[in-house]
Amino acid sequence: MDKVNLAEKFALLTEPYKPGIVGYLNDYKLQIVKVLGPFVWHKHDDTDDFFFVIRGRLTIQLRDRDIEVEEGELFVVPRGVEHCPTADHETLVLLIEPRDTTNTGDAGGDRTAKPVELF
Amino acid sequence: MDKVNLAEKFALLTEPYKPGIVGYLNDYKLQIVKVLGPFVWHKHDDTDDFFFVIRGRLTIQLRDRDIEVEEGELFVVPRGVEHCPTADHETLVLLIEPRDTTNTGDAGGDRTAKPVELF
Repeated sequence: MDKVNLAEKFALLTEPYKPGIVGYLNDYKLQIVKVLGPFVWHKHDDTDDFFFVIRGRLTIQLRDRDIEVEEGELFVVPRGVEHCPTADHETLVLLIEPRDTTNTGDAGGDRTAKPVELF
Repeated sequence: MDKVNLAEKFALLTEPYKPGIVGYLNDYKLQIVKVLGPFVWHKHDDTDDFFFVIRGRLTIQLRDRDIEVEEGELFVVPRGVEHCPTADHETLVLLIEPRDTTNTGDAGGDRTAKPVELF
Protein backbone atom coordinates (compact mmCIF):
# COMPACT_ATOMS: atom_id res chain seq x y z
CA MET A 1 0.00 0.00 0.00
CA ASP A 2 2.42 2.63 -1.29
CA LYS A 3 1.98 5.54 -3.61
CA VAL A 4 3.27 5.15 -7.16
CA ASN A 5 5.55 7.71 -8.78
CA LEU A 6 5.00 7.18 -12.49
CA ALA A 7 8.27 8.80 -13.61
CA GLU A 8 10.22 6.33 -11.48
CA LYS A 9 8.23 3.43 -12.87
CA PHE A 10 8.61 4.54 -16.49
CA ALA A 11 12.39 4.57 -15.94
CA LEU A 12 12.18 0.81 -15.34
CA LEU A 13 10.69 0.10 -18.76
CA THR A 14 13.40 -0.95 -21.16
CA GLU A 15 11.62 -0.87 -24.51
CA PRO A 16 8.47 0.27 -26.26
CA TYR A 17 5.37 -1.89 -25.98
CA LYS A 18 6.69 -3.90 -23.04
CA PRO A 19 4.14 -2.91 -20.41
CA GLY A 20 4.60 -2.85 -16.67
CA ILE A 21 1.97 -3.06 -13.96
CA VAL A 22 2.22 -0.43 -11.24
CA GLY A 23 -0.81 -1.47 -9.22
CA TYR A 24 -4.34 -2.75 -9.26
CA LEU A 25 -7.77 -1.23 -8.83
CA ASN A 26 -10.13 -4.06 -7.96
CA ASP A 27 -9.94 -6.41 -10.96
CA TYR A 28 -8.27 -3.80 -13.16
CA LYS A 29 -4.56 -3.43 -13.79
CA LEU A 30 -2.84 -0.05 -13.76
CA GLN A 31 -0.35 -0.41 -16.53
CA ILE A 32 2.32 1.81 -18.02
CA VAL A 33 3.87 1.55 -21.43
CA LYS A 34 6.25 3.42 -23.67
CA VAL A 35 4.78 3.92 -27.12
CA LEU A 36 7.02 4.43 -30.15
CA GLY A 37 6.03 3.67 -33.71
CA PRO A 38 2.89 1.82 -34.69
CA PHE A 39 1.49 -0.94 -32.51
CA VAL A 40 -0.97 -3.32 -34.15
CA TRP A 41 -4.58 -2.94 -35.20
CA HIS A 42 -6.78 -4.75 -32.71
CA LYS A 43 -9.93 -4.52 -30.62
CA HIS A 44 -11.19 -5.74 -27.30
CA ASP A 45 -14.69 -7.13 -27.59
CA ASP A 46 -15.26 -7.30 -23.85
CA THR A 47 -13.82 -4.08 -22.50
CA ASP A 48 -13.23 -0.40 -23.06
CA ASP A 49 -9.59 0.65 -23.12
CA PHE A 50 -8.32 3.67 -21.12
CA PHE A 51 -5.31 5.67 -22.37
CA PHE A 52 -3.87 8.61 -20.45
CA VAL A 53 -0.86 10.45 -21.89
CA ILE A 54 1.68 11.26 -19.19
CA ARG A 55 4.35 12.57 -21.54
CA GLY A 56 4.54 13.00 -25.29
CA ARG A 57 1.83 12.66 -27.89
CA LEU A 58 -0.14 9.55 -28.71
CA THR A 59 -2.02 9.00 -31.92
CA ILE A 60 -4.84 6.51 -31.59
CA GLN A 61 -5.74 5.54 -35.10
CA LEU A 62 -9.35 4.50 -35.57
CA ARG A 63 -10.69 3.17 -38.85
CA ASP A 64 -12.40 6.47 -39.66
CA ARG A 65 -10.11 9.05 -38.03
CA ASP A 66 -7.10 9.65 -35.81
CA ILE A 67 -7.33 10.85 -32.21
CA GLU A 68 -4.33 12.95 -31.19
CA VAL A 69 -3.94 12.61 -27.45
CA GLU A 70 -1.58 15.11 -25.87
CA GLU A 71 0.00 15.26 -22.43
CA GLY A 72 -2.71 15.59 -19.78
CA GLU A 73 -5.36 14.16 -22.05
CA LEU A 74 -7.13 10.84 -21.97
CA PHE A 75 -9.14 8.78 -24.37
CA VAL A 76 -11.27 5.71 -23.86
CA VAL A 77 -11.55 3.37 -26.82
CA PRO A 78 -14.98 1.75 -26.60
CA ARG A 79 -15.19 -2.01 -26.59
CA GLY A 80 -15.28 -3.56 -30.02
CA VAL A 81 -13.70 -0.56 -31.75
CA GLU A 82 -10.62 -1.30 -33.82
CA HIS A 83 -7.67 0.90 -32.99
CA CYS A 84 -3.94 1.14 -33.52
CA PRO A 85 -1.83 3.32 -31.18
CA THR A 86 1.25 4.97 -32.59
CA ALA A 87 3.67 7.76 -31.70
CA ASP A 88 6.39 9.55 -33.65
CA HIS A 89 8.43 10.13 -30.49
CA GLU A 90 8.63 8.09 -27.32
CA THR A 91 5.40 8.67 -25.45
CA LEU A 92 4.55 7.58 -21.91
CA VAL A 93 1.07 6.23 -21.36
CA LEU A 94 -0.98 5.02 -18.41
CA LEU A 95 -3.40 2.26 -19.42
CA ILE A 96 -6.21 0.87 -17.35
CA GLU A 97 -8.02 -2.29 -18.31
CA PRO A 98 -9.25 -5.52 -16.72
CA ARG A 99 -6.49 -7.77 -15.43
CA ASP A 100 -7.14 -10.47 -18.00
CA THR A 101 -6.96 -8.12 -21.01
CA THR A 102 -4.31 -8.94 -23.60
CA ASN A 103 -2.46 -5.97 -25.07
CA THR A 104 -3.00 -7.09 -28.64
CA GLY A 105 -6.68 -7.93 -28.12
CA ASP A 106 -8.08 -10.09 -30.91
CA ALA A 107 -4.99 -9.62 -33.11
CA GLY A 108 -2.37 -11.64 -31.23
CA GLY A 109 1.03 -11.90 -32.88
CA ASP A 110 4.54 -11.14 -31.74
CA ARG A 111 3.63 -7.86 -30.07
CA THR A 112 1.66 -9.79 -27.46
CA ALA A 113 3.40 -9.17 -24.14
CA LYS A 114 2.73 -10.23 -20.61
CA PRO A 115 3.28 -7.18 -18.38
CA VAL A 116 5.82 -7.36 -15.59
CA GLU A 117 4.93 -6.20 -12.11
CA LEU A 118 6.91 -3.08 -11.22
CA PHE A 119 6.17 -3.07 -7.51
CA MET B 1 -16.06 9.27 -28.40
CA ASP B 2 -13.80 12.26 -27.93
CA LYS B 3 -10.57 12.74 -26.08
CA VAL B 4 -10.69 14.52 -22.73
CA ASN B 5 -8.43 17.44 -21.89
CA LEU B 6 -8.30 17.43 -18.12
CA ALA B 7 -7.19 21.06 -17.74
CA GLU B 8 -10.28 22.19 -19.70
CA LYS B 9 -12.52 20.01 -17.58
CA PHE B 10 -11.01 21.18 -14.29
CA ALA B 11 -11.78 24.75 -15.36
CA LEU B 12 -15.47 23.83 -15.28
CA LEU B 13 -15.39 22.84 -11.62
CA THR B 14 -16.57 25.68 -9.47
CA GLU B 15 -15.70 24.54 -5.98
CA PRO B 16 -13.75 21.96 -4.01
CA TYR B 17 -15.29 18.54 -3.50
CA LYS B 18 -17.91 18.98 -6.19
CA PRO B 19 -16.82 16.24 -8.57
CA GLY B 20 -17.36 16.05 -12.30
CA ILE B 21 -17.45 13.01 -14.53
CA VAL B 22 -15.32 13.23 -17.67
CA GLY B 23 -16.05 9.77 -19.03
CA TYR B 24 -16.61 6.15 -18.28
CA LEU B 25 -14.54 3.00 -18.48
CA ASN B 26 -16.96 0.08 -18.52
CA ASP B 27 -18.83 0.36 -15.21
CA TYR B 28 -16.32 2.82 -13.74
CA LYS B 29 -16.60 6.58 -13.73
CA LEU B 30 -13.65 8.82 -14.57
CA GLN B 31 -14.08 11.63 -12.16
CA ILE B 32 -12.23 14.86 -11.46
CA VAL B 33 -12.31 16.89 -8.29
CA LYS B 34 -10.63 19.91 -6.76
CA VAL B 35 -9.37 19.15 -3.27
CA LEU B 36 -8.89 21.92 -0.72
CA GLY B 37 -8.93 21.43 3.01
CA PRO B 38 -9.97 18.23 4.74
CA PHE B 39 -12.70 16.05 3.27
CA VAL B 40 -14.30 13.52 5.65
CA TRP B 41 -13.10 10.25 7.10
CA HIS B 42 -14.78 7.39 5.27
CA LYS B 43 -14.26 4.03 3.64
CA HIS B 44 -15.66 2.03 0.77
CA ASP B 45 -16.28 -1.56 1.77
CA ASP B 46 -16.86 -2.78 -1.76
CA THR B 47 -14.21 -1.05 -3.81
CA ASP B 48 -10.68 0.24 -3.97
CA ASP B 49 -10.35 3.96 -4.60
CA PHE B 50 -7.95 5.37 -7.22
CA PHE B 51 -6.40 8.84 -6.77
CA PHE B 52 -4.09 10.41 -9.35
CA VAL B 53 -2.69 13.87 -8.68
CA ILE B 54 -2.76 16.02 -11.82
CA ARG B 55 -1.67 19.25 -10.11
CA GLY B 56 -0.75 20.11 -6.55
CA ARG B 57 -0.20 17.86 -3.59
CA LEU B 58 -2.73 15.57 -1.98
CA THR B 59 -2.46 14.19 1.51
CA ILE B 60 -4.37 10.99 2.02
CA GLN B 61 -4.66 10.53 5.72
CA LEU B 62 -4.90 6.93 6.86
CA ARG B 63 -5.48 5.97 10.47
CA ASP B 64 -1.82 4.99 10.94
CA ARG B 65 -0.01 7.38 8.57
CA ASP B 66 -0.30 10.03 5.90
CA ILE B 67 0.42 9.40 2.24
CA GLU B 68 1.73 12.50 0.46
CA VAL B 69 0.80 12.17 -3.18
CA GLU B 70 2.54 14.63 -5.48
CA GLU B 71 1.89 15.61 -9.08
CA GLY B 72 2.38 12.59 -11.34
CA GLU B 73 1.83 10.15 -8.51
CA LEU B 74 -1.08 7.87 -7.79
CA PHE B 75 -2.36 5.98 -4.81
CA VAL B 76 -4.99 3.29 -4.49
CA VAL B 77 -6.80 3.13 -1.16
CA PRO B 78 -7.75 -0.51 -0.64
CA ARG B 79 -11.38 -1.35 0.01
CA GLY B 80 -12.37 -1.12 3.64
CA VAL B 81 -9.52 1.21 4.61
CA GLU B 82 -10.54 4.43 6.32
CA HIS B 83 -9.09 7.53 4.72
CA CYS B 84 -9.50 11.28 4.67
CA PRO B 85 -8.12 13.30 1.73
CA THR B 86 -6.90 16.81 2.39
CA ALA B 87 -4.78 19.47 0.70
CA ASP B 88 -3.28 22.73 1.92
CA HIS B 89 -3.58 24.30 -1.54
CA GLU B 90 -6.03 23.61 -4.31
CA THR B 91 -5.13 20.25 -5.80
CA LEU B 92 -6.51 18.65 -8.94
CA VAL B 93 -7.22 14.94 -8.75
CA LEU B 94 -8.42 12.26 -11.14
CA LEU B 95 -10.49 9.62 -9.35
CA ILE B 96 -11.59 6.30 -10.75
CA GLU B 97 -14.17 4.17 -9.01
CA PRO B 98 -17.30 2.16 -9.85
CA ARG B 99 -20.23 4.25 -11.12
CA ASP B 100 -22.34 3.57 -8.05
CA THR B 101 -19.66 4.66 -5.55
CA THR B 102 -20.61 7.55 -3.27
CA ASN B 103 -17.88 10.09 -2.61
CA THR B 104 -18.35 9.97 1.16
CA GLY B 105 -18.52 6.16 1.33
CA ASP B 106 -19.95 4.93 4.61
CA ALA B 107 -19.79 8.37 6.23
CA GLY B 108 -22.51 10.26 4.35
CA GLY B 109 -23.19 13.80 5.54
CA ASP B 110 -23.28 17.15 3.80
CA ARG B 111 -20.15 16.51 1.75
CA THR B 112 -22.03 13.84 -0.19
CA ALA B 113 -22.22 15.09 -3.78
CA LYS B 114 -23.62 13.66 -6.96
CA PRO B 115 -21.08 14.33 -9.71
CA VAL B 116 -22.14 16.29 -12.76
CA GLU B 117 -21.33 15.04 -16.23
CA LEU B 118 -18.81 17.33 -17.90
CA PHE B 119 -19.20 15.99 -21.42
